[in-house]
Amino acid sequence: MTQNVHLGELSWPQYERWLSGTNPVMLLPVGALEQHGYHMGMNVDVALPTAVCERVAARIGALVAPPLSYGYKSQQKSGGGNHYPGTTSLDGMTLTSTVRDIIREFARHGLRRLVIMNGHFENAMFIVEGIDLALRELTLAGIDDFRIMTLSYWDFAEDPGLLAELYPDGFNGWDVEHGGVFETSLMLALRLDQVHLDKVEDHPPAQFPPYDVFPVIPERTPAPGTLSSAKEATAEKGQSILKVCVDGITAAIRHEFNPMRAD
Amino acid sequence: MTQNVHLGELSWPQYERWLSGTNPVMLLPVGALEQHGYHMGMNVDVALPTAVCERVAARIGALVAPPLSYGYKSQQKSGGGNHYPGTTSLDGMTLTSTVRDIIREFARHGLRRLVIMNGHFENAMFIVEGIDLALRELTLAGIDDFRIMTLSYWDFAEDPGLLAELYPDGFNGWDVEHGGVFETSLMLALRLDQVHLDKVEDHPPAQFPPYDVFPVIPERTPAPGTLSSAKEATAEKGQSILKVCVDGITAAIRHEFNPMRAD
Amino acid sequence: MTQNVHLGELSWPQYERWLSGTNPVMLLPVGALEQHGYHMGMNVDVALPTAVCERVAARIGALVAPPLSYGYKSQQKSGGGNHYPGTTSLDGMTLTSTVRDIIREFARHGLRRLVIMNGHFENAMFIVEGIDLALRELTLAGIDDFRIMTLSYWDFAEDPGLLAELYPDGFNGWDVEHGGVFETSLMLALRLDQVHLDKVEDHPPAQFPPYDVFPVIPERTPAPGTLSSAKEATAEKGQSILKVCVDGITAAIRHEFNPMRAD
Amino acid sequence: MTQNVHLGELSWPQYERWLSGTNPVMLLPVGALEQHGYHMGMNVDVALPTAVCERVAARIGALVAPPLSYGYKSQQKSGGGNHYPGTTSLDGMTLTSTVRDIIREFARHGLRRLVIMNGHFENAMFIVEGIDLALRELTLAGIDDFRIMTLSYWDFAEDPGLLAELYPDGFNGWDVEHGGVFETSLMLALRLDQVHLDKVEDHPPAQFPPYDVFPVIPERTPAPGTLSSAKEATAEKGQSILKVCVDGITAAIRHEFNPMRAD
Amino acid sequence: MTQNVHLGELSWPQYERWLSGTNPVMLLPVGALEQHGYHMGMNVDVALPTAVCERVAARIGALVAPPLSYGYKSQQKSGGGNHYPGTTSLDGMTLTSTVRDIIREFARHGLRRLVIMNGHFENAMFIVEGIDLALRELTLAGIDDFRIMTLSYWDFAEDPGLLAELYPDGFNGWDVEHGGVFETSLMLALRLDQVHLDKVEDHPPAQFPPYDVFPVIPERTPAPGTLSSAKEATAEKGQSILKVCVDGITAAIRHEFNPMRAD
Amino acid sequence: MTQNVHLGELSWPQYERWLSGTNPVMLLPVGALEQHGYHMGMNVDVALPTAVCERVAARIGALVAPPLSYGYKSQQKSGGGNHYPGTTSLDGMTLTSTVRDIIREFARHGLRRLVIMNGHFENAMFIVEGIDLALRELTLAGIDDFRIMTLSYWDFAEDPGLLAELYPDGFNGWDVEHGGVFETSLMLALRLDQVHLDKVEDHPPAQFPPYDVFPVIPERTPAPGTLSSAKEATAEKGQSILKVCVDGITAAIRHEFNPMRAD
Repeated sequence: MTQNVHLGELSWPQYERWLSGTNPVMLLPVGALEQHGYHMGMNVDVALPTAVCERVAARIGALVAPPLSYGYKSQQKSGGGNHYPGTTSLDGMTLTSTVRDIIREFARHGLRRLVIMNGHFENAMFIVEGIDLALRELTLAGIDDFRIMTLSYWDFAEDPGLLAELYPDGFNGWDVEHGGVFETSLMLALRLDQVHLDKVEDHPPAQFPPYDVFPVIPERTPAPGTLSSAKEATAEKGQSILKVCVDGITAAIRHEFNPMRAD
Repeated sequence: MTQNVHLGELSWPQYERWLSGTNPVMLLPVGALEQHGYHMGMNVDVALPTAVCERVAARIGALVAPPLSYGYKSQQKSGGGNHYPGTTSLDGMTLTSTVRDIIREFARHGLRRLVIMNGHFENAMFIVEGIDLALRELTLAGIDDFRIMTLSYWDFAEDPGLLAELYPDGFNGWDVEHGGVFETSLMLALRLDQVHLDKVEDHPPAQFPPYDVFPVIPERTPAPGTLSSAKEATAEKGQSILKVCVDGITAAIRHEFNPMRAD
Repeated sequence: MTQNVHLGELSWPQYERWLSGTNPVMLLPVGALEQHGYHMGMNVDVALPTAVCERVAARIGALVAPPLSYGYKSQQKSGGGNHYPGTTSLDGMTLTSTVRDIIREFARHGLRRLVIMNGHFENAMFIVEGIDLALRELTLAGIDDFRIMTLSYWDFAEDPGLLAELYPDGFNGWDVEHGGVFETSLMLALRLDQVHLDKVEDHPPAQFPPYDVFPVIPERTPAPGTLSSAKEATAEKGQSILKVCVDGITAAIRHEFNPMRAD
Repeated sequence: MTQNVHLGELSWPQYERWLSGTNPVMLLPVGALEQHGYHMGMNVDVALPTAVCERVAARIGALVAPPLSYGYKSQQKSGGGNHYPGTTSLDGMTLTSTVRDIIREFARHGLRRLVIMNGHFENAMFIVEGIDLALRELTLAGIDDFRIMTLSYWDFAEDPGLLAELYPDGFNGWDVEHGGVFETSLMLALRLDQVHLDKVEDHPPAQFPPYDVFPVIPERTPAPGTLSSAKEATAEKGQSILKVCVDGITAAIRHEFNPMRAD
Repeated sequence: MTQNVHLGELSWPQYERWLSGTNPVMLLPVGALEQHGYHMGMNVDVALPTAVCERVAARIGALVAPPLSYGYKSQQKSGGGNHYPGTTSLDGMTLTSTVRDIIREFARHGLRRLVIMNGHFENAMFIVEGIDLALRELTLAGIDDFRIMTLSYWDFAEDPGLLAELYPDGFNGWDVEHGGVFETSLMLALRLDQVHLDKVEDHPPAQFPPYDVFPVIPERTPAPGTLSSAKEATAEKGQSILKVCVDGITAAIRHEFNPMRAD
Repeated sequence: MTQNVHLGELSWPQYERWLSGTNPVMLLPVGALEQHGYHMGMNVDVALPTAVCERVAARIGALVAPPLSYGYKSQQKSGGGNHYPGTTSLDGMTLTSTVRDIIREFARHGLRRLVIMNGHFENAMFIVEGIDLALRELTLAGIDDFRIMTLSYWDFAEDPGLLAELYPDGFNGWDVEHGGVFETSLMLALRLDQVHLDKVEDHPPAQFPPYDVFPVIPERTPAPGTLSSAKEATAEKGQSILKVCVDGITAAIRHEFNPMRAD
């Protein structure tokens, strides 16, 4: 596949031509700049959905819009908390407005099928609100055929076989998968040079009470900022995850949006 | 226990006296006006956390602030979707601003311990944002000892014994517990006259793909608007839930905030 | 009267059936959490319009939506000022957004007749702005038949006979009627147990200059927080007020909206 | 009196010198662009408070800031309604933000005494909110000595002698004084050439029910847009009003703010 | 020319009659309250575009709406910086909202041709955003023939002959023309009594690096607050500028909007 | 130079170590997704400042934060207009809020020196407003040593020698340099494969009147969307520009912020 999947690298006439296809699908990765422990950089949550988008796009002739690199505030029980240096987050309304504005513009172009691929748990509801505000406005404008799929890519990895491969000793749940085996394996598969496995601290999964306290009590997050150990991460596991997610998301988009191109 | 737990029924000197105690704790229920199937009214998500708050307050000498009766937009996979008649929701920023404003005022009064008890899944992140905006402002005002616990009461029901009692045939997960056995049992225990078990439709748990599509496709929600069947709901189960939740939340607040009154 | 007038206690199919009537009317009480002196709780401004709404609804087959329990900031010359402990107020835009959002949702349901019943003087203009923003949006959506009546229930008590009964020594004007004979009598009629007449301080009506100063100078408010004495309040006066207001408002709604049900 | 009272006509060093006085007072007129019947222009609500400010400023050595010429939406029962051509109004939050921003800047300059003189009934609460937002921010900045007086100039005309002179046949209340004897007399005294008494339509005072309906029903406003007849307006009456208001406001400011200059 | 060009001085029926013409054009001056050195008042940026508007309006039968007297924050390299006492600026969103609201109202009146004449460099982009937000809303309302011209009046003075007359020793560029020969000459021509040439400090043009630093370093602005010397300003030059600008803008409006009246 | 300049690729302890240096400087590129003619992709305005940032960062030991890939709406006279397909822009307040939020977070980390490098003309004022809102808030938080430099990289290319090399036939001004020789040469030097010189249309520089009209009249933009011809663009010119800009910006940052590392 040699087609350029990056919207930003197309000229406007190329984009216009692409838009004239049948059910063209745009993919928008939404991530975060958030600490991911001692062993990885802070762009994990944007790098991963972007990589998934690129692979999905190549399969279905979609385009990938420039990712949103800043996300909503890290929460202690899913991302360690927003008190770490480096974690750089937006107010909820800022993220919501960004999503709303981009949808409005895509609709003006004539696009009618959008997939928002989330890579940062905390973003989900603010993306939903951005979608709702945008669709409300589009409805007022008489546009009622704009359809949006929104997903967090890890929700496609709920395959029992995959989970058994990733966690031979048992899965601890997505909630502690911040900087753990899942994300680290993916980074090993995709950006090997940015992972420093020697820095992984092998701590037990974080345990949290069934509530949140604000201001966050920093000591409740394991010191590295990760919520489970990445010790068992491997590039092979990353490839397996990638395959399952890309396959699943590709199938889902085909099912919902039926875009123009066969694989 | 004869003390009035409702903030709204106290005069301001009574409230001022209460505030002079040790670590006084205010409880704020946040709910929604949302359809809950054929067999229940639409105030379930506010009635339930309010009832839990009243019981917890009586145990620890807390007060219950007037509940927020309107919440964030119902999502298909947790609440059936916002397209039902009767479901009456706020924009995210409206809910966030409301939470922020109320915290600001409580801080002005001299309160320093607040529990926000959520009864509607979709509210959670907008409450979090309201808390963050308020605490940011309080910090600027030199107030750095205001502490907030936020929780969804059902997160205290994760007890294996309780789940076994509630779901002898196996638990389907919280995500399909909209209008199902859990909420209906609680309503039977608390507001028997508002539940019409004869209207319950015994449908299998809703099944959703690992993504969301907007605009929502109404047919993907079971017709009644519930996500699982309430057929096995009983008032006894409701009493069990209530006990576990009230006990757990009471203990959690005592642990975190150490309020003034013994039981 | 056996019909349930509370929207929150209806299931969505019940609500849908109600909506299919002729000119169905929804009533939305908007109040405040505001100190009302030594002798009453702080929920007076929401309890009273809610009670009026319930009685009016029963007469005309209307429904009462969950009240808004928090209102705009108390002003010194009408509510004693926002500096009292317990008074818990919203920013203007928060109240306005709440009203706007709720109207938008009611319109989505198919409702076309709404009465907003205000119980807190300071709310009035922010309700008006919420109505204007909502109707502007509805107009863009092609909905031009949504009609809203907004009122403060005490404006229906301007009957000379009633005023003579309430104030045999002469009426001091609505502006000092915060926590005075009017509101206290209504509370005596409706929530006897929440009024402590022994706590009433018999002070002369507050006198204010023809301007406001900010920050408020607390000493300019009579110490109890009330603006006139409630000493002459009686439950009988409360019943008289209630009758006049309910009759008047019922007639007004029938005149403007002509709803489906005879008394 | 030869001193220039207009802030906009001073150079910044002149302003700085003025600020170094004792308790210097700034006056900010806030008006509207709103129809005022067949016989007057639409700038009445800004022209009148500006004229009062100029006279008061000359008496106490105050300055007059550039007036706000656009105000909040005209209401039917106080201004005829916002449906008239020419009436050009702001959203509430726009007016509130403007007031907040200007106060913030005055505080930065070192000013600590501000009088906001309102000329348009509908503005009042949005001015109050702008004041509250500004003072909240100033408090965070450690500025706690900024004092603001806000008033509507006509509230100083409640003198029985004056009312008897203005309305020998009885006063109908401020609510119908839109474009009537009061405002028209003032305009005759101040801007004779802009009043066309021959266009006055001699209609009885408008009568409104004790509620508002939206969208406004235009027919409920007397056709000219005025709420009472200006037929008895005279320049002499205008001079009397002006004297009473300027005297009263001057005294009030001296009483509250004690500015530097004797008369 | 005896026609009144000020919208605020017309009654609504006069305005309505004017609107019934062919392509009636409204002019809205947008300025600032900003220091302009030792020798001029702070209303220069609003006085000048208002004066231009009045002259243009008289030529083409346009109306002048009340000017916006407060603008966006002064920038060091174009206005000396926002740290001077007296400079009184709005947040960007406040100015944007004001422009949006006024356009919305003009559209409701039936106006379809608006010229926004800017007198303060820093306003330009916030005006543009106000226009965009308003036109977006008008489009949703089905109004697609509202046309807006926006300009800064000095952009019509780029005539080589004029520049040679104004700056016989060479033009230093618009960026340092804050309080210099250009604006001062115009003020001399229009408001002679408000200019104090004896206060002019004859400093060389300000020199700035190709970047901005925040917080502003006050010393980088020439002490008077002007960015070049006004020493060579004369009323004759002001008349020349005025003629060129008024001619040019008149021609541009005629070209674009073709309003009803010949000169 | 082997140090990683990308903030997103550092772990939080690496970032914390970097922050402990002397005057560490963060660089934030702000661009746009905007059409750039037939011959280039739409990411030019973000790719170019990012590339400049990377080179500057390597020279002074700075870090480059993830760029903002979406900017303010394209204007006809500087970017061709926002009506082209592909151009995907944010509302002004969205961009402003994003900048504000990111600065707030950097300040929390302990950073005190930030350079915002703009690559899209239309962004400038909304960045300025974001800076102002952030610094206002930081001041309230007692942080008064956060310094920000903001610049558009092309403002460092005003070197006469460079302009002579780039435009041997004379420079037409920055305003028509959208997609012309300047940007295209830079892209040739940096992303050769993304430039298609064969698609360049050799049109004369765009000519615009001294005003803007909205809605934009598309025909006034040259058909390709560029405002001048890129025909004479070469990679060598791009290298020259890059050198001048990187040198100049490096020197400016050293001058203003004096960061820790020698070249």
